[in-house]
Amino acid sequence: MEVAGRLDRLRAALGAAGCDVLVVAHLTNVRYLTGFSGSAATLLVLPDGAVLVTDGRYEEQAADELAAVGVEAELFVGRTLAAQTDELRTRLAGVARVGLEADHVTWAEQRRFADVVTGDLVPTEHLVEELRAVKDPGEVARIEAACAIADEALAAVLPQLDAGPTETAFAAVLEAEMRARGADDISFDTIVASGPNGSRPHHQPSSRRIEPGDLVVIDFGALVEGYHSDMTRTVPVGGVGALDGTQRRMLEVVTAAQAAGVAAVAAGLPVAGVDAACRAVIDEAGWGDAFVHGTGHGVGLDIHEAPGVNGTSAASLVAGQVVTVEPGVYLPGHGGVRVEDTVVVTPDGCRPLTCAPKP
Amino acid sequence: MEVAGRLDRLRAALGAAGCDVLVVAHLTNVRYLTGFSGSAATLLVLPDGAVLVTDGRYEEQAADELAAVGVEAELFVGRTLAAQTDELRTRLAGVARVGLEADHVTWAEQRRFADVVTGDLVPTEHLVEELRAVKDPGEVARIEAACAIADEALAAVLPQLDAGPTETAFAAVLEAEMRARGADDISFDTIVASGPNGSRPHHQPSSRRIEPGDLVVIDFGALVEGYHSDMTRTVPVGGVGALDGTQRRMLEVVTAAQAAGVAAVAAGLPVAGVDAACRAVIDEAGWGDAFVHGTGHGVGLDIHEAPGVNGTSAASLVAGQVVTVEPGVYLPGHGGVRVEDTVVVTPDGCRPLTCAPKP
Repeated sequence: MEVAGRLDRLRAALGAAGCDVLVVAHLTNVRYLTGFSGSAATLLVLPDGAVLVTDGRYEEQAADELAAVGVEAELFVGRTLAAQTDELRTRLAGVARVGLEADHVTWAEQRRFADVVTGDLVPTEHLVEELRAVKDPGEVARIEAACAIADEALAAVLPQLDAGPTETAFAAVLEAEMRARGADDISFDTIVASGPNGSRPHHQPSSRRIEPGDLVVIDFGALVEGYHSDMTRTVPVGGVGALDGTQRRMLEVVTAAQAAGVAAVAAGLPVAGVDAACRAVIDEAGWGDAFVHGTGHGVGLDIHEAPGVNGTSAASLVAGQVVTVEPGVYLPGHGGVRVEDTVVVTPDGCRPLTCAPKP
Repeated sequence: MEVAGRLDRLRAALGAAGCDVLVVAHLTNVRYLTGFSGSAATLLVLPDGAVLVTDGRYEEQAADELAAVGVEAELFVGRTLAAQTDELRTRLAGVARVGLEADHVTWAEQRRFADVVTGDLVPTEHLVEELRAVKDPGEVARIEAACAIADEALAAVLPQLDAGPTETAFAAVLEAEMRARGADDISFDTIVASGPNGSRPHHQPSSRRIEPGDLVVIDFGALVEGYHSDMTRTVPVGGVGALDGTQRRMLEVVTAAQAAGVAAVAAGLPVAGVDAACRAVIDEAGWGDAFVHGTGHGVGLDIHEAPGVNGTSAASLVAGQVVTVEPGVYLPGHGGVRVEDTVVVTPDGCRPLTCAPKP
């Protein structure tokens, strides 16, 4: 990963955001900018340097992690909150416009911050998130590793569906399999939604036993070195032959819609076009009203990050963005189908990072 | 649980907080006040009523959950964010002082809110949290049920420590056992810290294999109907006889410190006295510097909530509060010991809710 250049790219964006200095309060953004992965830090991005303020627990770890990625930031270890606040006060004295991440501090924190600065506190939004949207090769490699673990884990446990496990039990074995194959953690709470439960897009695994003839929506991922994967497969238990006509049609339509969405991904093309491509196929099948969520989202250090992939986006895709394409159809009584891949945007298309077979 | 009276108790506190109306933005607080457990809601607490604003996904669930606990609040279902915002604007028009939970909205959200109200936006802190600190019998019963599941699950899996599982594997079987015994979820990420890893209070389970002679810090809990349990036991693998002299002394000292802390709990006594009682025993043993965290915290709908149990507290304990008492000693090289119970404060002492034997 090319961590060391990120602070300079952020500095280049500060003027347009109306600030001289940025206070980065969001830990994921601190990690992106410095490599520091601890649970307490504030990063000051100054015109000619940076200061990472943390507490005594992290003295050694912070020094090691910054050095490991070659980030040149001063480290200030304050054993008390008061000492840390004093350091911020000293560093920010006389700065006219102090940016503060408005999405990542509470109103209470902002009010305490207002007492620390002498200049204006300027709310900023999405500054670091916009940098994070475009991944470097090292980031893509980590997401790809997480996706490969998810692919392999699904293949390993899929035969167990035939034994009729509960949704909860199947989710547990899938998660254990990902950990056994090297995932640092699961990427988010696994969704296993079988039969009629499939009509709820965010169903939580229940004690329902999976049966032949069920469609089972499995939405899950792995975490590798802070980076997430995200994939959904909808599996017909007992094979496609065990489905009724509506279920089979749902599976065909959503699979085609997802392929159409992936085919609409390329650098320079509109984000909204991916959404439109998916919806056109589902609308044509008469199920437009049953596709009740957005088409996708960026994936990286967060499971949901920029860019959002939906019909209201005015943005264009950029090479190096990693996004999901995940249309679905949800019919109360019949169940649901969602098919999702994580893909990396390339100059002339995209490369899927999740590769499990689609039924 | 006596949910229906909570809104009136909150209304009684609004005047002193300088507001005419309170906007409750924190979902856990909304759940406490109304019984609604969905993932999107804003609650307006008006002088003569309340309005729960949510979205189309939750129309049925919200109506059911409010009715189930007898809460009289109007329900407004806005299918779009704009419709929800319009409803808030209408309801808040002309209100002079609108309280907003400053700890639970981002600065960005507060700025959007400022455009919705015509009066002053007043930051409030801890209003609902202070009500939540004192539990009613129904709440205590749920915490007690969660504690009982944790006790039973630990007893069931403890013999497996002798087989030398990895920390990760042991955490997984303990978590699975809690779910199998009726936990809705785990209460927080389980800590299993064995041997030298025990010197880190918040160690994450690793691939280290547990060995005879290890002290193993096991900090875990169950979730039942939204309520948490929290317990730590430090287990000597192979029995106390397998420990070296320092380990044995650590276990004795921390167990005695924890008992002293529990003995200092009673309604009307100072919170800080619980902390002092624990620290006195550990100081006496010469390990004062190795007790590096607070002594405890409230437990309820959140795993960490009011009251904080530490030496800087100026508060007194109140009957019905549920708190942890969890001193520890952490010695790099030797490992760590922490012993923790969740107890409910009574007029003349406390009643432990976690009851697993202490080695």
